[in-house]
Amino acid sequence: MSTQAVATEALDAVRALSTNRNLCMIPGPIEFHEEVLEAMKVGATSHVDPKFINIFGESLELFRKVLFSKEGQPFIITASGTLGWDMVAANLIEKDENVLVVSNGYFGDNFGECLKNYGAQVQYLPSEFGSRPTLQKIEQALNEKKYKVITLTHVDTSTGVLADIEGVAKLVRQKFPNTLVVVDGVCSVGCENIKMDDWGVDVVLTGSQKALGAPPGLSLLVASQRAISVFEKRTTPPSSYYAGWNRWIPIMRNYEARKASYFATPAVQNVMALNVALKRLEAFGIENNFAKHREVSDSFKDTIESWGLQLVPVSRDVAAHAMTAVYYPDNVTAADFLPKIAARGVTIAGGIHKENASKYFRIGHMGISVVEPQRQHITRVLDVVKESLSECGYKI
Amino acid sequence: MSTQAVATEALDAVRALSTNRNLCMIPGPIEFHEEVLEAMKVGATSHVDPKFINIFGESLELFRKVLFSKEGQPFIITASGTLGWDMVAANLIEKDENVLVVSNGYFGDNFGECLKNYGAQVQYLPSEFGSRPTLQKIEQALNEKKYKVITLTHVDTSTGVLADIEGVAKLVRQKFPNTLVVVDGVCSVGCENIKMDDWGVDVVLTGSQKALGAPPGLSLLVASQRAISVFEKRTTPPSSYYAGWNRWIPIMRNYEARKASYFATPAVQNVMALNVALKRLEAFGIENNFAKHREVSDSFKDTIESWGLQLVPVSRDVAAHAMTAVYYPDNVTAADFLPKIAARGVTIAGGIHKENASKYFRIGHMGISVVEPQRQHITRVLDVVKESLSECGYKI
Repeated sequence: MSTQAVATEALDAVRALSTNRNLCMIPGPIEFHEEVLEAMKVGATSHVDPKFINIFGESLELFRKVLFSKEGQPFIITASGTLGWDMVAANLIEKDENVLVVSNGYFGDNFGECLKNYGAQVQYLPSEFGSRPTLQKIEQALNEKKYKVITLTHVDTSTGVLADIEGVAKLVRQKFPNTLVVVDGVCSVGCENIKMDDWGVDVVLTGSQKALGAPPGLSLLVASQRAISVFEKRTTPPSSYYAGWNRWIPIMRNYEARKASYFATPAVQNVMALNVALKRLEAFGIENNFAKHREVSDSFKDTIESWGLQLVPVSRDVAAHAMTAVYYPDNVTAADFLPKIAARGVTIAGGIHKENASKYFRIGHMGISVVEPQRQHITRVLDVVKESLSECGYKI
Repeated sequence: MSTQAVATEALDAVRALSTNRNLCMIPGPIEFHEEVLEAMKVGATSHVDPKFINIFGESLELFRKVLFSKEGQPFIITASGTLGWDMVAANLIEKDENVLVVSNGYFGDNFGECLKNYGAQVQYLPSEFGSRPTLQKIEQALNEKKYKVITLTHVDTSTGVLADIEGVAKLVRQKFPNTLVVVDGVCSVGCENIKMDDWGVDVVLTGSQKALGAPPGLSLLVASQRAISVFEKRTTPPSSYYAGWNRWIPIMRNYEARKASYFATPAVQNVMALNVALKRLEAFGIENNFAKHREVSDSFKDTIESWGLQLVPVSRDVAAHAMTAVYYPDNVTAADFLPKIAARGVTIAGGIHKENASKYFRIGHMGISVVEPQRQHITRVLDVVKESLSECGYKI
């Protein structure tokens, strides 16, 4: 076979995936706008090309705005969102410092694992599956020991439970002013309300492929000036090289000042796609985006409940607006149900919370699937869930 | 302005960059084949979609073949190539273990910095700008102390100097069998000959955007089974979370076994583009690719020297085939020369070696620019260099 023939066959496999693609209704990666994807195929561009530097700098500024931060230091690093945990652990924690990890599920637990990996003394404040600890419980835990950092998973993608960031941040700022408030916003940034400055949040981290609406590949984080000065007062160097803010702060500042600089080659195309996604978000209005996600989430959950199904979050006020986690009804199993969904051209997610993985499924509703109802993603996924349940013998 | 208007304006900026794009002749990111870029705009796809798992698994297998490794453990991680250094340091080094860093420039020096960051005792074996240490010098250094790891930068992108991987690896295997041979192949993998198994190399790391011919965003590494067993015998956990092989080995093995698993969401689109690039490389033939890069590099350097210019590498046998580093002639400065190149629609790179940055420039010649002469990238960059030198007052 000639080079061209083999190569075209290679692309054919990828194209086949593209044209017969399932509608992607997992809690990230989410469906992307065509203009965002268009930016992914910009040809080779130097990471120090002035036009690219401008796009990068602009993206940093736009990302800061998404979090209502005026002075925070934004980072856009080439990695999965997970690297955000390493950035927190390796830059804000020195050996044996105390961290309170408020965990509502799989991702909270793993953030704790990451912190331990870098030497933190981690105290978990767990909660029952589907619930979150009360503010009183959190205050009680903070009173027991001096914590350098408290971490919260805004939306634990494993359970769909929403943390009360505003309540916790305001409590900490008032009563434990030296404790840093760190928010894993992987499944929340862009679609759940976060006011970094007003609430006194110190770090928010996320990935590009959730409510920001860009393909995966970028780890995004904003650190408050309070967090940056805690970082600057370290007595030991950051315990990571690639995730070290000492390497990245000068680079990010240079990008914002539209100056060329280099530490590691960024995923140029992904940054361009993120830029388009952030501009679309700004144009739609971030508050509008929050409202639209709340509205669609509410009606989505109403429909699910009207079918006699039970949500994983114990009540609506602890339920995320980016996704819905739902228990299987009696006599319906993941092994039976999920392939029926896939066969109908839609991808949703199974459970991933350790002990409860087999008991529930998860559907993401973020980005264009939410704000562009004409695409009918929401009605389609609901139809497919209904049909598949029915085929499994569950009558609605 | 309406959402659509603002958003389209956002894409326009990116499109403008695309249509008025300079020919990218830096030593990476390199110019990509259209089919590779086409794969970058595949719509949202779950990272556990069976078709994507197949593409990922296949990419791991193809990458292993590029390095002529039969049993090595490949890793494809979402990050800049730089994370490969963290993977080596965090997984193969425990506190105070000795590493010999053979450095021909900026990248070798920084690899050493990364190793120190994770607790290694680093001994540098430096060399004069433009040269590399002799095998005898390396043997002498290895005799002075017991080293757990020796690192070599195959092509130091800052100088264009080529290391003798085969010679060093064979020496180490014969005389220092417990020392691991680690190769930074960022600017070599795919276009310089590397026979991992035959030569006894333990780790080769690279990034997606160099001679493999895919966009930036993926850090690639193959570890020999010897390296994996050294890793498995650690007495302390890996000193990184995101770069920890304990996290990634099960994931990579599952992808190869075409099984779904999850640690962090990979850059799905970038992996698809890499897959197309690797299939193109396989179809062309990896040995053919080496030969073509040697041939084009030789004639490129002949032309440069025929103009009376001097190469940075002290002799042809220590010069890389992926790039050429060239001293400015007397009375030509970077500030004068580089903008003249850019104005002609081509991007090349300035110097980045600390003390010598202002004395030379760098041109990359890899991938489609080399193997598809009909694109006339090589002739174009040479023409533009010639014209710009002439405009700077240097007569050829």
